[in-house]
Amino acid sequence: MSLIVQKFGGSSVSDAESIKRVAKRIVDTKRAGHDVVVAVSAMGDTTDELTDLAHEISPMPDPREFDMLLTTGERISMALLAMAIKSMGFDARSYTGSQAGMITDSRHGDARIVDVTPVRVREALDQGAIAIVAGFQGFNRDSRDITTLGRGGSDTTAVALAAALKADVCEIYTDVDGVFTADPRMVKKAHKLNHVSSEEMLELAAAGAKVLHIRAVEYARRQNVTLHVRSSFSNDEGTIVYNPDRAKEFEMEDPTIAGVAHDLSEAKITVTGVPDVPGKAAKIFTLVAGQGANIDMIVQNVSAVSTGATDISFTLPKADAAKCMQTLEAHKDEIGFEALRHDDQIGKVSLVGSGMRTNAGVSAQLFEALAEAGINIDLISTSEIRISIVVRADIVPEATRVIHTAFGLDSDSDAVVYAGTGR
Amino acid sequence: MSLIVQKFGGSSVSDAESIKRVAKRIVDTKRAGHDVVVAVSAMGDTTDELTDLAHEISPMPDPREFDMLLTTGERISMALLAMAIKSMGFDARSYTGSQAGMITDSRHGDARIVDVTPVRVREALDQGAIAIVAGFQGFNRDSRDITTLGRGGSDTTAVALAAALKADVCEIYTDVDGVFTADPRMVKKAHKLNHVSSEEMLELAAAGAKVLHIRAVEYARRQNVTLHVRSSFSNDEGTIVYNPDRAKEFEMEDPTIAGVAHDLSEAKITVTGVPDVPGKAAKIFTLVAGQGANIDMIVQNVSAVSTGATDISFTLPKADAAKCMQTLEAHKDEIGFEALRHDDQIGKVSLVGSGMRTNAGVSAQLFEALAEAGINIDLISTSEIRISIVVRADIVPEATRVIHTAFGLDSDSDAVVYAGTGR
Repeated sequence: MSLIVQKFGGSSVSDAESIKRVAKRIVDTKRAGHDVVVAVSAMGDTTDELTDLAHEISPMPDPREFDMLLTTGERISMALLAMAIKSMGFDARSYTGSQAGMITDSRHGDARIVDVTPVRVREALDQGAIAIVAGFQGFNRDSRDITTLGRGGSDTTAVALAAALKADVCEIYTDVDGVFTADPRMVKKAHKLNHVSSEEMLELAAAGAKVLHIRAVEYARRQNVTLHVRSSFSNDEGTIVYNPDRAKEFEMEDPTIAGVAHDLSEAKITVTGVPDVPGKAAKIFTLVAGQGANIDMIVQNVSAVSTGATDISFTLPKADAAKCMQTLEAHKDEIGFEALRHDDQIGKVSLVGSGMRTNAGVSAQLFEALAEAGINIDLISTSEIRISIVVRADIVPEATRVIHTAFGLDSDSDAVVYAGTGR
Repeated sequence: MSLIVQKFGGSSVSDAESIKRVAKRIVDTKRAGHDVVVAVSAMGDTTDELTDLAHEISPMPDPREFDMLLTTGERISMALLAMAIKSMGFDARSYTGSQAGMITDSRHGDARIVDVTPVRVREALDQGAIAIVAGFQGFNRDSRDITTLGRGGSDTTAVALAAALKADVCEIYTDVDGVFTADPRMVKKAHKLNHVSSEEMLELAAAGAKVLHIRAVEYARRQNVTLHVRSSFSNDEGTIVYNPDRAKEFEMEDPTIAGVAHDLSEAKITVTGVPDVPGKAAKIFTLVAGQGANIDMIVQNVSAVSTGATDISFTLPKADAAKCMQTLEAHKDEIGFEALRHDDQIGKVSLVGSGMRTNAGVSAQLFEALAEAGINIDLISTSEIRISIVVRADIVPEATRVIHTAFGLDSDSDAVVYAGTGR
């Protein structure tokens, strides 16, 4: 018998019928002889509807009250889910973030977990009950106020519970079969990974893979929680995200490449004719950081001897581009650059694989394949186990497929793609 | 400066616009220099919608989870209300039942308040903030579970807060101008009472007056809280419900009659030919009580010497009639009655007034007026300050008007009736 934490997202509990289906799934796990703790998100669009309601009241809702409002969403779904399980003859108890001991700092809307004391959850398990915990929420011990965890909150709740309860596995239920070698919606021949190292999963998530939120993956890696990403629509095994201590178990076949991720959410800003003297780059990125923009790739050309000037390009979330352009423009003379260029029609394609460490030929193979396909690369950046390239947005699908094929990731059959985009 | 508790029902906070209107009203009170604590119900039909959702999941939802579900309704409205007040530049903080220290027993769905420790509410007031408390909910200290107070719950929350905080007055906002001498929807010439004793208010509520829930009136009388029933649609003074200690203040004019209430929610059961021997009535009402039926009036005819048998009639909520009939029928031989008669086309009209104590002529005057109008009385029961009669349901409006006129309660002008039935 093992202790299993299961997380179900909003698309898995969008109405009474789907809540009953999820309840049956939980009961099946319990029947199989396991202890079960569930973290659940708000039903379907509840969070959006509550947000709209708040904005009808005020364009800038008070953060404390906004958290109080949003957390009702998970309370509704967890109560309904517990009712459904009870009606199947199994004991179940729902717990709010505070009842489950999800202690956070006081940053309303984006709180960080500082401690998890699931005393009542443990009691429920000891009494043979299934514990249902509201995802996405916690409470601050000092103010005794309710908080929300922000993006990826429900996944993080599940991982935090799994860590605190020393669960054997944390199952993240989603609307795809697991982690794929590429987005099946873009690459028909993408195939599901049976397992992927948490290190690779981190890079894939950072590179744009949507299936898991990077925050939850980091938490799981730090707390040494094994994740199992699987579909709430089938009973097939999904993808195991394992940590270093279990590497031997999974890396027999020593995979060179885990997959190809793409990201269309970024824009590129290029600062041309920057005097190639110390401190200029620092000045630029200090200004950008001051705007709270999250810089991803940075590339600086070698400076032209003739002019002694250089070009600096960087990518950042599209939403942050405008204010950064304004700030830089405002300091043009100070920095002494020639011009600013902004391009939001770009996309990033990343090849991720721990095998890169020991395999020097990967980048050469990548560029060769792209060259053969006549794909022009704009920017390149690499990490120990990742190569990312920036290309024109409309080229992203082709580039992704080309790389996927070049590294032998194509499966013989086409991947099944579900209707829902989910999560 | 005084401390005022204000209660707003669901019809007063049915959408963003009405929430803003209520917020303005609260802010006006604060501006006038008062400390303000607000008890708020769930928005409009939220509670009904959540109930429907629960029944889609299970015909008999688990009580603990059902309370968890329903209490989200008030959390939504209180958070939105606090946001609205904050957006007007005043400090406001919302508190759940447990945060506000509403400690109850563990009877989910119909919990009783056992203690009120509004520490955080007091803190908020001391810091100059307006405290918004979720009505209808509390929590059980032993199980640490969330509970709901059942019918009249939000009014009771307001009264309990007023008592615990020693508020100067508890304002109950509703969709009528106050307590009327009769239901203005039935009696055009009904007029608003400027004040009524809590004793009379208890009798009026018990006799069917809908404006206040009897449970809240009892709590207010026991805890010596002054109530002010007023309209959330106007700024006019409403009706003060005062306790004995303030009688001198209000009873200069010594009113004989407070008003006429009617009740169409009851049915009548008549057991005919009951052997007139000790213990038969006891047997009957033990059986009825066993069904959890709430008996109102009981009338036993003098037994006919010839037969030595008697008839016993009693009234009870329509909903309880069927099961009581079954139970009595099942024990027919044991009790030895002749027949059971059931009539749900009855109505009760009650005349209430503390002046009755000192004025013997009231009942005579009542029966005379009804006789003149050719109204046939079915049952009669009286208390020290109330006379209730049961008539055919279709006669109730006329009987009410006749009595209202006979005791000089008619006003010169017609009462304003609002669209909403509210609360």
